[in-house]
Amino acid sequence: MSSTDEGIEPTAIDITSRMGVIDDDQCIELMSSTPIGRIAFTVDGHPMVVPVNFKWHEDTIVFRTLEGQKLDAAAEGQTVCFEIDHWDAGDETGWSIVVVGQAREVTNFAEREQLESIGLIPWAKEKWRPMWVRIEPESIAGRVLR
Amino acid sequence: MSSTDEGIEPTAIDITSRMGVIDDDQCIELMSSTPIGRIAFTVDGHPMVVPVNFKWHEDTIVFRTLEGQKLDAAAEGQTVCFEIDHWDAGDETGWSIVVVGQAREVTNFAEREQLESIGLIPWAKEKWRPMWVRIEPESIAGRVLR
Repeated sequence: MSSTDEGIEPTAIDITSRMGVIDDDQCIELMSSTPIGRIAFTVDGHPMVVPVNFKWHEDTIVFRTLEGQKLDAAAEGQTVCFEIDHWDAGDETGWSIVVVGQAREVTNFAEREQLESIGLIPWAKEKWRPMWVRIEPESIAGRVLR
Repeated sequence: MSSTDEGIEPTAIDITSRMGVIDDDQCIELMSSTPIGRIAFTVDGHPMVVPVNFKWHEDTIVFRTLEGQKLDAAAEGQTVCFEIDHWDAGDETGWSIVVVGQAREVTNFAEREQLESIGLIPWAKEKWRPMWVRIEPESIAGRVLR
């Protein structure tokens, strides 16, 4: 697991509470240093959530995929939700970041070519994942429980 | 983090692939030993996904909550998606389990009383979470990348 929770300080805490908010800069830092997130999208009117390895690139979320439900959701331009988190069962502490934004399939040649150079190699290597999905964040919310 | 990925063996693997399927018994074992999952539900027609601490109890997912979007989704009887995972960035390995099922608010007195005895204490302790949500699984799918 990542150790990206180091140094995460809540910026707005009720003094009686262990819960706080993560500011935008820290959210970006955590998005930039976390390789796995979960995308929630809609299939037949119901939510589906699956993990993907992704990169935070130019203030957007990008990931590779094959044909399938995730690509369909992006091709439809769905508003999706993307989540990363980290937790420690011993301490009962953790943090999460939830991003809401519109997904789209990257179809532009130049944009695809540029994404091929950012160093995002799929963990599942047997089948190449030639398509790219990009999520433009509309909101980012970070929460910490320390 | 949990170390529940020990001993997870894919049961149906393409010999050229590191990807495999986790069988139902192993899915249940992992659901039973993982304290944090993510629930994806629908708000205003769009998916939202947030982490919760939960228990696998009597072949259902149960968690505590306050009034809010999660409880609303349950009160509406939404079909939701629940995900747990574990990953290792060094090895680029991991596993995930995705459960789809109908959520409901637990309103029956006897059922609530019984759930109060299962030892699910919220990690966020400042505000008591008096409501319970229960998800009855319709499908469970486990995937491993080793």
